[in-house]
Amino acid sequence: MNLFFSVNNVVNPTALAQEAIDLKKQPFAHEQLGKHKTLGLIFLNPSLRTRLSTQKAALNLGMNVMVMNLDKEGWALEMRDNVVMNGTTVEHIKEAAAVMGQYCDILGIRSFPSLQDRTSDYNEEVFNKFITYCGKPVVSLESATLHPLQSLADLITITELHNSAKKPKVVLTWAPHIKPLPQAVANSFSEWMCAAEVDFVITHPKGYELHEAYTKGATITHHQEQALEQADFIYVKNWSSYHDYGKVIGDYPEWMLSLERLKNTNNAKIMHCLPVRRGLELGHDVLDSDRSLVLKQAENRIYAAQIVLKKILETQS
Amino acid sequence: MNLFFSVNNVVNPTALAQEAIDLKKQPFAHEQLGKHKTLGLIFLNPSLRTRLSTQKAALNLGMNVMVMNLDKEGWALEMRDNVVMNGTTVEHIKEAAAVMGQYCDILGIRSFPSLQDRTSDYNEEVFNKFITYCGKPVVSLESATLHPLQSLADLITITELHNSAKKPKVVLTWAPHIKPLPQAVANSFSEWMCAAEVDFVITHPKGYELHEAYTKGATITHHQEQALEQADFIYVKNWSSYHDYGKVIGDYPEWMLSLERLKNTNNAKIMHCLPVRRGLELGHDVLDSDRSLVLKQAENRIYAAQIVLKKILETQS
Amino acid sequence: MNLFFSVNNVVNPTALAQEAIDLKKQPFAHEQLGKHKTLGLIFLNPSLRTRLSTQKAALNLGMNVMVMNLDKEGWALEMRDNVVMNGTTVEHIKEAAAVMGQYCDILGIRSFPSLQDRTSDYNEEVFNKFITYCGKPVVSLESATLHPLQSLADLITITELHNSAKKPKVVLTWAPHIKPLPQAVANSFSEWMCAAEVDFVITHPKGYELHEAYTKGATITHHQEQALEQADFIYVKNWSSYHDYGKVIGDYPEWMLSLERLKNTNNAKIMHCLPVRRGLELGHDVLDSDRSLVLKQAENRIYAAQIVLKKILETQS
Repeated sequence: MNLFFSVNNVVNPTALAQEAIDLKKQPFAHEQLGKHKTLGLIFLNPSLRTRLSTQKAALNLGMNVMVMNLDKEGWALEMRDNVVMNGTTVEHIKEAAAVMGQYCDILGIRSFPSLQDRTSDYNEEVFNKFITYCGKPVVSLESATLHPLQSLADLITITELHNSAKKPKVVLTWAPHIKPLPQAVANSFSEWMCAAEVDFVITHPKGYELHEAYTKGATITHHQEQALEQADFIYVKNWSSYHDYGKVIGDYPEWMLSLERLKNTNNAKIMHCLPVRRGLELGHDVLDSDRSLVLKQAENRIYAAQIVLKKILETQS
Repeated sequence: MNLFFSVNNVVNPTALAQEAIDLKKQPFAHEQLGKHKTLGLIFLNPSLRTRLSTQKAALNLGMNVMVMNLDKEGWALEMRDNVVMNGTTVEHIKEAAAVMGQYCDILGIRSFPSLQDRTSDYNEEVFNKFITYCGKPVVSLESATLHPLQSLADLITITELHNSAKKPKVVLTWAPHIKPLPQAVANSFSEWMCAAEVDFVITHPKGYELHEAYTKGATITHHQEQALEQADFIYVKNWSSYHDYGKVIGDYPEWMLSLERLKNTNNAKIMHCLPVRRGLELGHDVLDSDRSLVLKQAENRIYAAQIVLKKILETQS
Repeated sequence: MNLFFSVNNVVNPTALAQEAIDLKKQPFAHEQLGKHKTLGLIFLNPSLRTRLSTQKAALNLGMNVMVMNLDKEGWALEMRDNVVMNGTTVEHIKEAAAVMGQYCDILGIRSFPSLQDRTSDYNEEVFNKFITYCGKPVVSLESATLHPLQSLADLITITELHNSAKKPKVVLTWAPHIKPLPQAVANSFSEWMCAAEVDFVITHPKGYELHEAYTKGATITHHQEQALEQADFIYVKNWSSYHDYGKVIGDYPEWMLSLERLKNTNNAKIMHCLPVRRGLELGHDVLDSDRSLVLKQAENRIYAAQIVLKKILETQS
């Protein structure tokens, strides 16, 4: 593996999740694999879980880690080609990416969407320039449109919890929020579920349709209550509108789930990528109950990152 | 040991200081103990000495260290229960602490007081929520009311320097400052000295009385000159008022010590936790003389942290 | 070696560059040398390349690294002696440097000039106070007047690329910029080239004369075109005026190099320390051509730092 950006970079997502579960039993078994190898983690946006879990994954593999918080360390990057750089940007991404590539064996990069310019965001201009210029294997730490380490951790969590021969029913439901959030987690969870061995349903209010490139194979409905019936796993997530790009087009507080709202499910487990705004996106009662898988998902972020780094290291060596 | 928050978490403070002194002679002797173990250092407030000395202590024990500057990395935490999070906080401490606990084997946490709400500060609400939700052993890197790693380093320093069969006379004296500072260092030094084998005197202007929970057994006087007589060790520190909570209720520049003011002491050594404002809290002449122990105290921060981490690791393994 | 601040701290710059080239072939050959040793990197100003390359160099030698971004971590240092610290500074450099020295075996320090007070800048007051008080070997990560790790990397790059018995012609040319930049890179490159086995020419518009202490032995001219003739290596760099201190005294856009402007050179290779403002300091066509050595220079920053750290570690052990 040389790129981990989308489920499409993975031959068999189900098998990869299973390998991560095996790794979790012996996290230090491969600590020689990363010896003398350096992982560079580049953040153009803030991160807590992603940085820590990826750092831990790399340490488990014996790698060194160098972190660059470009958003805070005052290094404004120029992304446009052939402009005269007489403004506020101090370095072009061509040089910045290439230099960081020279100092590291694998790079992880986080770059959120602008939510202003849909074409640029959905063309993944920033992320793709990094890939082009850095010259090293790249792991997405969440890009404008996708968050694959989160989705792999989610698939690991579902795989660990599901204990029936029958395919689980997995529902992705839109949840309220006060701010316009990226579609990345929703797009990404959707493309991974469409590639996994589950029955997958997406539900959201009208106007919150996701880009269809990520939802092929999913059942999509505006009726949340109906979608939740007999669900085994419910993934709760807010996103802003794709069609009226980056907008909050209605707040729909009634879409927030509580324990009461889960009564017609198959004793469904509840998932969220965190951070979660309690009482707004998801009820306190759900998060404080044993229905909640949010901490298990967060823990599995380590093993999602570790199996991906392992695959890349094995490709290099 | 599973918690290091106060002298009350230590069975025998004198013995612990002696063990740290032994460790200092062979700092790498236990570097296998921390193998595969990760220390997470969480800062809700700035830190220089504490971060570096604790990081060094962990490295000496073979641990990995991950640092989270939550104050700077833009992750505003919600501390209140059962509120609708529709404001500026992005994550509840319940989830944040639990997630960080999953990525680390031991957590260190720094959380200063508000100096606005005495009840909340003295109930250690933030620190206690971390302990409750993180699920791992916790080391205080200074909380609202106490700074135990500093006090242990101070006790180590006194133990190293005192060379008489007679108990040393140790004086904690209030010093001037232009800003309202927490009472944590003073409370903490006081509770450790009350538990150590020393004669302990506290002196401060009227109105700067500390909470009596931390000063039981100490002699307390408003007469600085009298307090200093025959002193072996003098600990210099500013704090704001506990009773008129968080206020500077008088600047008392005459309370600043100079070499001249030390003439009736027993050739006393001078201590301060740093950072120190020269010429305001303590005279340049004292800091530049061989009376000053401030650098030795700072050095001993390493071994204070190392003996505490060692005790916790031994409890875990 | 106990100090790496200037070419004057190096007995034989040419030999040092050659040793770095040898090291590059086996970067991990000395990974036992840095065992149990800690490098502290102190930044009073932002850094990308310097931090990462020095960190990588230290890791290659088996050292631990602790980074302190004092510019961001809110620890304003007092530099003046014998003042009453009742303003915004929270710690004196005497204590800060000494404490950081106690926690580390080698310190690296970055401190830019004010560009306001030439005497203070050229006396290297900040850097020299660090050396005086920290008590450990110090590596400059760029000071007010010099950037020796960059210059050593530049000499390594020239040594690697030059393949003729004849001394290469090396030209340092001033380039346009919109902001007043330090003279450090230019001073430093000049003093290293004057000590190396090259024919060295400096060209700049009138008024941009460098301090003559750094340029002894160089040919200096205001005629850029003439300077470039038959050049083998051209180092492009902006700097502000030394004589009208810290000022931009003319923007001279015609001084920017393009491929067209290189036609009378000896197929010259182009160097720049990065970050570079494309289209302002240097033409896109040059940077995108195989004439450009900027990435090779950045890569060699690792080995420049590594040979310097190795020399210091060998002196210590």
